[in-house]
Amino acid sequence: MKLYNYFRSSASWRVRIGLALKGLDYDYAAIHLAKNEQFAGAFAQQQVSHLVPALALDDGTWLSQSMAILEYLDETHPEPPLLPRDADDRATVRAMSAVIGCDIHPLNNLRVLRYLKTDLGQPQDTVDRWYRHWIATGLAIVEQRLAATAGTFCFGDTPGLADCLLVPQVYNAERFDCPMEAFPTVLRINAACLAHPAFSHTHPSACPDAA
Amino acid sequence: MKLYNYFRSSASWRVRIGLALKGLDYDYAAIHLAKNEQFAGAFAQQQVSHLVPALALDDGTWLSQSMAILEYLDETHPEPPLLPRDADDRATVRAMSAVIGCDIHPLNNLRVLRYLKTDLGQPQDTVDRWYRHWIATGLAIVEQRLAATAGTFCFGDTPGLADCLLVPQVYNAERFDCPMEAFPTVLRINAACLAHPAFSHTHPSACPDAA
Repeated sequence: MKLYNYFRSSASWRVRIGLALKGLDYDYAAIHLAKNEQFAGAFAQQQVSHLVPALALDDGTWLSQSMAILEYLDETHPEPPLLPRDADDRATVRAMSAVIGCDIHPLNNLRVLRYLKTDLGQPQDTVDRWYRHWIATGLAIVEQRLAATAGTFCFGDTPGLADCLLVPQVYNAERFDCPMEAFPTVLRINAACLAHPAFSHTHPSACPDAA
Repeated sequence: MKLYNYFRSSASWRVRIGLALKGLDYDYAAIHLAKNEQFAGAFAQQQVSHLVPALALDDGTWLSQSMAILEYLDETHPEPPLLPRDADDRATVRAMSAVIGCDIHPLNNLRVLRYLKTDLGQPQDTVDRWYRHWIATGLAIVEQRLAATAGTFCFGDTPGLADCLLVPQVYNAERFDCPMEAFPTVLRINAACLAHPAFSHTHPSACPDAA
């Protein structure tokens, strides 16, 4: 497998974590978003969305969208599972993941920040305020939901799908100096994850393309 | 089951379609977003995100996030399936759904439009341009992906998960006068879906709370 990704893209990191939790090997292909490499060459032809990550399977199939890729990995490599067994629990974990994957991250994607700045002519401090607003709104919901589900990790005591999304989101929040005092459970779980090799070894700073 | 939803919310409509495709009965609870009912009463206490839809199960469990709910329905009521069987195909359908559910819709949610207008002080025509931009960007990707997957519906000849997302997104696009000429496959599938009772009977205009 070959993972097309960018060290700093949080959607990319989700998939790196999922692959690491599953113990799966892959080739690392760097697509430097800040240098607009997503718009060039073979990658752009394959991925008309110009978004990372994309996972090219050995049979030539290309998968895209981080959550779809993580579900695929869980279906094709069931152990260790990213989702719990019980349908209600699976819905709980998927919903918590969607708070991050649908309600926070898409609003703070690089292309959206660029649109705010360039097309809408917003100053940087307005863009930063936007960024922090959606993180604060979303993490407040995550924090509240974790009260019902958290053990060492987001759902019980083994890392799973929601942790794959949480840790890259916290990384983004910290990069943009978002206040985090209101999210003690989020911070505790983030620290527990970062002590796990599937998270630390795939950290943006550990990537081959890290600046 | 009781579905807390809003006739015009496209995430709500996705779940109404999924329930209808599965032939499942439910009570309809209207939460009028434009009247801010999502911030009041028992609903707001249960749903700290103040977002619809939410599905209250008969055992008292509350499910949230439309895509998590649809996955739950598919796991607990497998026939007829919303997702294909093959793992690659499931990833394809989930990725197409995520283009709408993650890359278009979250950017055009009511709370986001309100933030642009109220907090960022953007005039209505800028908000409308924003809305149309993300629809045009996202539907262009969907249109291109459909070339590889579409039959009568998004994936082959039976309606499924991607159709649950596509039709409400087209409804939104048409409400906001988005140009649609570039998306002939999208329009063709949308028409096929609207001829199917699971889509027409759950249409916003057919909802008890339709204005």
